[in-house]
Amino acid sequence: MIVKDKHLTTIWYDNSSDKIKIIDQRLLPHEIKFVELNTLQDVCFAIQDMQVRGAPLIGITAAYGMYIAARENSDINYLKDASIKLKKTRPTAVNLSWAIDYIFSNIKNLDKDNLLNAILDLANQMRLDDIECCEAIGENGLKLIQKLYEKKQSTINILTHCNAGWLATVDWGTALSPIYKAKRNDIPLHVWVDETRPRNQGFNLTSWELINENIPNTLIVDNVGGHLMQHNKVDLCITGTDRTSSNGDVCNKIGTYLKALAANDNKIPFYVAAPISSIDFEISNGLLSIPIEERSPDEVSYIEGKDEFNKISKVKIIPENAKCINYAFDVTPAKYITKLITEKGIVEPNKDSIITLK
Amino acid sequence: MIVKDKHLTTIWYDNSSDKIKIIDQRLLPHEIKFVELNTLQDVCFAIQDMQVRGAPLIGITAAYGMYIAARENSDINYLKDASIKLKKTRPTAVNLSWAIDYIFSNIKNLDKDNLLNAILDLANQMRLDDIECCEAIGENGLKLIQKLYEKKQSTINILTHCNAGWLATVDWGTALSPIYKAKRNDIPLHVWVDETRPRNQGFNLTSWELINENIPNTLIVDNVGGHLMQHNKVDLCITGTDRTSSNGDVCNKIGTYLKALAANDNKIPFYVAAPISSIDFEISNGLLSIPIEERSPDEVSYIEGKDEFNKISKVKIIPENAKCINYAFDVTPAKYITKLITEKGIVEPNKDSIITLK
Repeated sequence: MIVKDKHLTTIWYDNSSDKIKIIDQRLLPHEIKFVELNTLQDVCFAIQDMQVRGAPLIGITAAYGMYIAARENSDINYLKDASIKLKKTRPTAVNLSWAIDYIFSNIKNLDKDNLLNAILDLANQMRLDDIECCEAIGENGLKLIQKLYEKKQSTINILTHCNAGWLATVDWGTALSPIYKAKRNDIPLHVWVDETRPRNQGFNLTSWELINENIPNTLIVDNVGGHLMQHNKVDLCITGTDRTSSNGDVCNKIGTYLKALAANDNKIPFYVAAPISSIDFEISNGLLSIPIEERSPDEVSYIEGKDEFNKISKVKIIPENAKCINYAFDVTPAKYITKLITEKGIVEPNKDSIITLK
Repeated sequence: MIVKDKHLTTIWYDNSSDKIKIIDQRLLPHEIKFVELNTLQDVCFAIQDMQVRGAPLIGITAAYGMYIAARENSDINYLKDASIKLKKTRPTAVNLSWAIDYIFSNIKNLDKDNLLNAILDLANQMRLDDIECCEAIGENGLKLIQKLYEKKQSTINILTHCNAGWLATVDWGTALSPIYKAKRNDIPLHVWVDETRPRNQGFNLTSWELINENIPNTLIVDNVGGHLMQHNKVDLCITGTDRTSSNGDVCNKIGTYLKALAANDNKIPFYVAAPISSIDFEISNGLLSIPIEERSPDEVSYIEGKDEFNKISKVKIIPENAKCINYAFDVTPAKYITKLITEKGIVEPNKDSIITLK
């Protein structure tokens, strides 16, 4: 997508230097900094500390991580160890395992000398496939927005939670891709951007993406969405997903469930943009079976922003001796989801429909 | 309640100096600062800028505001002007009008020379009545917690949103009063404290109150409550109310509605501690008729905390050119509320029950 008239993606292979480069998303929206991933340790850190985040982007980063590991040592046992380390970085998104397993399944018959180039080719191809997948999600989601616009004939108000924009993928995004497509089709739009505490990906990333793409948007704290829905200020919701179970339960950023409940209570469609790589066909009940990552309480008790001197500064926002807990995801039961928007089309959030995507 | 072994209340009349004193709650939890209210303007500022907040405390502060106004000029027209200024400071809580109207109804037959002392006596009495009312809410709410504890026989987990503790009243609080009573009755408790963005009254005030009273509590961002309820980690919810309509709809801090939806979805009781002064018998549909205050967007875009030098510092947490909106309250429909806990007893959130309180 566009940032100050320049087309950026979140991760790429620089052919001339044989380097993997990313945007360090921890510094957004205040600073755009490109970072090189040179070692397996760099890659694990980038995923764990959320220099890169978003289920699809985590998957692609892990794929390049396997290339970087192979560059360190292309022995199959080293690669297996590397894959275990990578899979451990974040437990919830299934794309991480999916990407690594995909690479292994494609190299199993190759001899050691050919592994390195094969893995790089695979990672590069997965990166391109992700862009194509996200664009297809955009085209499919666009149809839903178009249908609403034909009926309403005025600005379509969309609420989104967290960031499932191009920063969560390689380009286009998942939840925001239909919004970018609608903008290119001249549908008047306005987006309600949930702050998404504790890491504020809505304020830091989604808002920044939308401002750069000239899409009108308003920032709200996570408590506001229900009130807006009660007062007809939301036409539809779209979020991403970190893992979708085969029965259609959606594990996504903490707080998604609360917005889905409010949408249901106010008869507002609640769509989830779900690349097929996010579907875990092994899990038939998301609420019981998807592991929920618990992250550092410091993400709750400290918050970063610009101080009066325009310097990035961290402040502590809890009392002395207070204790926090930080669950990063929740599961929205399938019954509260209107449709899943995939790259292969729009499907019902149930077993029979989801199985057709396999 | 107790702060560092000292019994504090939020507002009091100092007889020896003829001064009204408050705790400046904007500085909590980092600093306890007592402030004098000397002019009508001081009182309006204290309510508007939230040096004092919480529906019951706003009411009592306005009552003392009328005394301060009468000290400036005890002409009835001046007092009427003063009452208009006071009522305008915050639109949502009904206690503000309730307190002022109560004073007017009690002074209408007095001549000018007796007004000043009469208003002071009324304000002092209202302050004492508020303490008594909150303690009675505590005793009534305690019965609900006791009943749950008899069944569960282990720690009762209570979720609360915003601050409806003693800091929102004169003493005891509304939503937290049953918790303080349960603690004094040796019921093992744990409280989940919602951050309550944008002004973070949960982290700043509720957590600070509970820590000072030695009640175990854990701070969570506003997105987490639904997930906890899905996983049986909440036994009941209690919140306060800024205005309760005669049909039982509850207008409370923004985000209350989302928690009530989650409680309903997970069959967890959702109680509202509602002093009768919070009930607006004139309004029969809260969702349509209660005015929702819109406050400055700066409350969303800036956040205050302690910096690395332990100094209170403000940081900006939104991108350049981003736009915020700040709705301060939402309305939870009566159907999602289990019971109202009043000083006169526990009632159903419906017209027939509420009318008996009039």
